[in-house]
Amino acid sequence: MISQDNHLQIGSLLFEGLDQIDLTGPFEVFSRLPGSTYRVFGKTNTPVRDLRGLRLMPDAVLSEAPQLDLLHVPGGFGQEALMEDQDVLAWIRDQAAGLRCLFSVCTGALICGAAGLLKGRRATTHWASMHLLPFFGAIPVDERVVVDGNIVCAAGVTAGIDGALRVAVDLRGTEVAQAIQLALAYAPEPPFSSGTPQTAPPAVLERVQGSYQAVTAQRERTARRVAKRLGIDSSRQPTGTPPIGAA
Amino acid sequence: MISQDNHLQIGSLLFEGLDQIDLTGPFEVFSRLPGSTYRVFGKTNTPVRDLRGLRLMPDAVLSEAPQLDLLHVPGGFGQEALMEDQDVLAWIRDQAAGLRCLFSVCTGALICGAAGLLKGRRATTHWASMHLLPFFGAIPVDERVVVDGNIVCAAGVTAGIDGALRVAVDLRGTEVAQAIQLALAYAPEPPFSSGTPQTAPPAVLERVQGSYQAVTAQRERTARRVAKRLGIDSSRQPTGTPPIGAA
Repeated sequence: MISQDNHLQIGSLLFEGLDQIDLTGPFEVFSRLPGSTYRVFGKTNTPVRDLRGLRLMPDAVLSEAPQLDLLHVPGGFGQEALMEDQDVLAWIRDQAAGLRCLFSVCTGALICGAAGLLKGRRATTHWASMHLLPFFGAIPVDERVVVDGNIVCAAGVTAGIDGALRVAVDLRGTEVAQAIQLALAYAPEPPFSSGTPQTAPPAVLERVQGSYQAVTAQRERTARRVAKRLGIDSSRQPTGTPPIGAA
Repeated sequence: MISQDNHLQIGSLLFEGLDQIDLTGPFEVFSRLPGSTYRVFGKTNTPVRDLRGLRLMPDAVLSEAPQLDLLHVPGGFGQEALMEDQDVLAWIRDQAAGLRCLFSVCTGALICGAAGLLKGRRATTHWASMHLLPFFGAIPVDERVVVDGNIVCAAGVTAGIDGALRVAVDLRGTEVAQAIQLALAYAPEPPFSSGTPQTAPPAVLERVQGSYQAVTAQRERTARRVAKRLGIDSSRQPTGTPPIGAA
């Protein structure tokens, strides 16, 4: 546990087409950490739209960020452009060298992977993209929060809240994280058990998989190009829709 | 269940000092409802800051809203100003007359109460403000999601996700809500059971209650003024910190 005298610089990466709760879920947790400065960093100073249209404003641009202690990389379909954006990838790599914690949520793991940071690391992402992790040399682990050294990956979308509480424990201790959980009244009661491919009704799973097919195929094409750039042999990776629940 | 041919107009109220996940949690659910238009409405067209500093942009101003089918009112300390903002309260009342569903999250219930919409209604809010509901003539119910006719209240902060899934069932049926839950990978795994006053460790509860004392006292003063305006006898309401877990 790190002393609270030790001020934390926390930053989230904001980009066009992110899935907003990948950012706003962890924001709710990290913004309550004592002894911290939290800013949202964008490529430009203008608002971005999340993949469903919510508009969020950055606090500063990437080049204005100090060396961060915690860098939070959300996901969402907009991750596609970032996986081949060498400026953003270089910024993440430069930050990573001095971070206490790199924290990805959902397909934010694909961005971190494209930055070359997941080679040989245990990692997770949204269930529909889990099969893409080996293209970055990562070892897929079908758990909600995966910790490998100073890299923490949360699985899909809402898993960012659980992952952020885990990171909060590492940075400020259990009691602080518990106090944040109480303040957020985070005692979830989902009305169904439809939150994973293993537990959703088959018709629901089929419907959601169908809606992801095009974007997953697109992500795979991008992942193959990235694998080539990273020098990872992707010839033995499977193609197409991932087997359900496969790690 | 309503036919999907029946287009839904959905709106969230955005205001300075809201608690952002009260808005962004339900946004994640409602923005995925088929056959709907979802916009975020503010008093002005300029960005607002949430209570921890996240900047969000409205899509339109209040006067630009059509009659909505679903109005979503988030909470957060900024609710104080709105409880005595007659323009906003009148807008909510006007909308309420034609809504299929009024949905409050956290202390958004205090805003709806101040608009006079919770008289005689079962309601809930953040645990630290539960004792204030009777000032608006509401009947406090210590449950995570409370449904009374076409008014749905979610309890504190993250309860908005659970409440939104419940509303999604009413508007578009169970299978749509389950598909959204799967897309959001909403199978929460909080690392502790510290999300309610009843389950949090006593030291954690004391710490969080202490941090709320000033704002709760302020809310109570405002609630008393509102009760007078609404013609509700608040002389028999208790004063000061609520008993833990009291409904």
